[in-house]
Amino acid sequence: MNSFNSPSFFAGQTVLVLGGDGFCGWPAALRFSSLAARVVILDNGARRETDRRLGVTSLTRIHSLQERVDAWRATGGGAIQTYDIDLAENYAGLRRVLLETRPDIIIHFAEQRSAPYSMMSPEGARHSVDNNIRATHNLLAALAETRLDPHLMHLGTIGVYGYATAGLKLPEGYLKVTAHGADGRAVDKEILYPGRPDSVYHMTKMLDQHLFEFYARYHGIRITDLHQGIVWGTQTAETGRDPRLVNRFDHDAIYGTVTNRFIVQALEGRPLTIYGSGSQTRGFIHIEDMLTCLTLAAATPTARGERVRILNQIAETSSINALARKVSRLTGAEVVHVDNPRCEPEGNEFEVDRGTFHDLGFVAHRFDEILGTEIAQLGDLLCPRGEGRRSSVA
Amino acid sequence: MNSFNSPSFFAGQTVLVLGGDGFCGWPAALRFSSLAARVVILDNGARRETDRRLGVTSLTRIHSLQERVDAWRATGGGAIQTYDIDLAENYAGLRRVLLETRPDIIIHFAEQRSAPYSMMSPEGARHSVDNNIRATHNLLAALAETRLDPHLMHLGTIGVYGYATAGLKLPEGYLKVTAHGADGRAVDKEILYPGRPDSVYHMTKMLDQHLFEFYARYHGIRITDLHQGIVWGTQTAETGRDPRLVNRFDHDAIYGTVTNRFIVQALEGRPLTIYGSGSQTRGFIHIEDMLTCLTLAAATPTARGERVRILNQIAETSSINALARKVSRLTGAEVVHVDNPRCEPEGNEFEVDRGTFHDLGFVAHRFDEILGTEIAQLGDLLCPRGEGRRSSVA
Repeated sequence: MNSFNSPSFFAGQTVLVLGGDGFCGWPAALRFSSLAARVVILDNGARRETDRRLGVTSLTRIHSLQERVDAWRATGGGAIQTYDIDLAENYAGLRRVLLETRPDIIIHFAEQRSAPYSMMSPEGARHSVDNNIRATHNLLAALAETRLDPHLMHLGTIGVYGYATAGLKLPEGYLKVTAHGADGRAVDKEILYPGRPDSVYHMTKMLDQHLFEFYARYHGIRITDLHQGIVWGTQTAETGRDPRLVNRFDHDAIYGTVTNRFIVQALEGRPLTIYGSGSQTRGFIHIEDMLTCLTLAAATPTARGERVRILNQIAETSSINALARKVSRLTGAEVVHVDNPRCEPEGNEFEVDRGTFHDLGFVAHRFDEILGTEIAQLGDLLCPRGEGRRSSVA
Repeated sequence: MNSFNSPSFFAGQTVLVLGGDGFCGWPAALRFSSLAARVVILDNGARRETDRRLGVTSLTRIHSLQERVDAWRATGGGAIQTYDIDLAENYAGLRRVLLETRPDIIIHFAEQRSAPYSMMSPEGARHSVDNNIRATHNLLAALAETRLDPHLMHLGTIGVYGYATAGLKLPEGYLKVTAHGADGRAVDKEILYPGRPDSVYHMTKMLDQHLFEFYARYHGIRITDLHQGIVWGTQTAETGRDPRLVNRFDHDAIYGTVTNRFIVQALEGRPLTIYGSGSQTRGFIHIEDMLTCLTLAAATPTARGERVRILNQIAETSSINALARKVSRLTGAEVVHVDNPRCEPEGNEFEVDRGTFHDLGFVAHRFDEILGTEIAQLGDLLCPRGEGRRSSVA
């Protein structure tokens, strides 16, 4: 089954969540806390600061990290320690946190995570590269220096592979090849998948992967890189417990994913806008399923000396057109096509090996099963007293 | 032939040399100036600062950049403009230099370039990654932003491939493979060589290569990446014109290459120290040959829309043992083996495709032809009045 039946599964373990105030990080912190781990959050509030700078905001009213942590404790959750430290800029602070908390598991979400943001300006591109590479490398250097031996789990992206896959079913991180040398000699090798990222953001996650490969090989650091699809959904079992625990919901052009954008458009009675032909195929995963995958990966840590474990963390693939049709069917929303503001291949094949999580017992929730419930819940969340919602949700 | 016969070959062209005060950058600046290019140097003095910080120094007395540039002008060379700007930290300054000088050719040497430095401490590793990735990415972002269209030439390293080559003759950057997908489907692809770098420094040059691939594909930036071997030799036709133009000579454990170390040991009458078995095979190139390759690459720029051109820039491969025997034969120095302070494969095969420079007419100088002259010249340079040299040079 998908979930951990024992509520004390991670008892005795310390989980350090880097970026634990963010859209994925906050629900992950609560999930591990609910499974009895001692949870520590390191977050410098970068995502909230980006909101202010770009003039965008979560549609749900998110509380300060301190209020969130206090509310979790007040509603029966465990204590969560927090550190306001910039992973990319404060190496000494990071090292101190590592030595003070001695984590068994580190989950690294602390990166700039928007592809459009990384492509919209030189500043966006530079910040994505500078912040993400420095953050990841600081973490690896600190683990090598302190000789702590946590299992490091990193949120990569399925976009590391690139969407022009040349007709191959994508493996989990490593590609078997017959290599033909400059003199024609042929050798069988297994190599990191030679990705062709479609944005600067995706490229940073490819560079991360090379940093991981090096530090695993040289310093024996135990690493799992989770190549996740587009996360959709908002609330989880834990964030739904109290309004002060609510998760963020982005629907703007920069941080909102296609799923969120469609749902908000439908709830407001506007047409669903498809970028380009809509035949782009992408990988998706519901936020509850993300938590299941994280706990499954955490429960099966890699061994020292092992190469980086790379897992594809998606529930299903779908074309954007098929997704729009599903939302339309549930809400009655119109579907329109607009010029694609992104530079991306259209009509790509996209088949992905998901063997490891399947073998670990993961059963994904699919759009067909839960999209209707999700839309209805989100409608209630955004317009709790029925005020002003212009569309009806089937 | 190796050299450009016309002394006005690059007349009318502006060459911006990033890191133009360094061991490779300074001779390159003078060579392009002597071939009638308008030369601009951007350098923040980082290499001299590292000398001070680590307490090491060039054995030759190098003058300040301003004194060097003045001396070049005084001895009949062209004017060289200089900017003291940190490429990694001052994006606005870089953009201003680009817009003011509008270079036709940019040669990017401005990176931390010592593998031992990148491995000796967390600070060395962090500085190598932070500085090199930020510098290269700032440059690419500024070229994309300004829409200038220079031919960017970057000094990579032959170590990008890694020394565990699994019996393959190394291609020039791109490897032909038959890829076997997760479902067994096979597809022929040509991919960036999947490197396995042996130090953090080498890794940064691999990350650079991925940045280049992305920016060439998305922004049409014209790029040549030169995967150079270990550079040896000190003076060039231009740096030898006047004592104030002398190039730097490093022989310490951090910045000195094996060739320099052997030559100094021989000149001082000490044994040549081989790290480990000495059966490590490496690629080498004399500094005059480096200049020939740079001018050949600059004279054959890539076209907009072309993929990154990757050239292997080495004159010959040699095992460390064979190199030591050559120095020993010329100087009478003893050879001893010491524990290898580096973590590197021993006894590697190392065959490298050098087709492009060969086709461009490059004829390399080899140790057997010029090592004796180089040792004699260096003896004169370091001990100009014969004072204190303890060994005799054959």
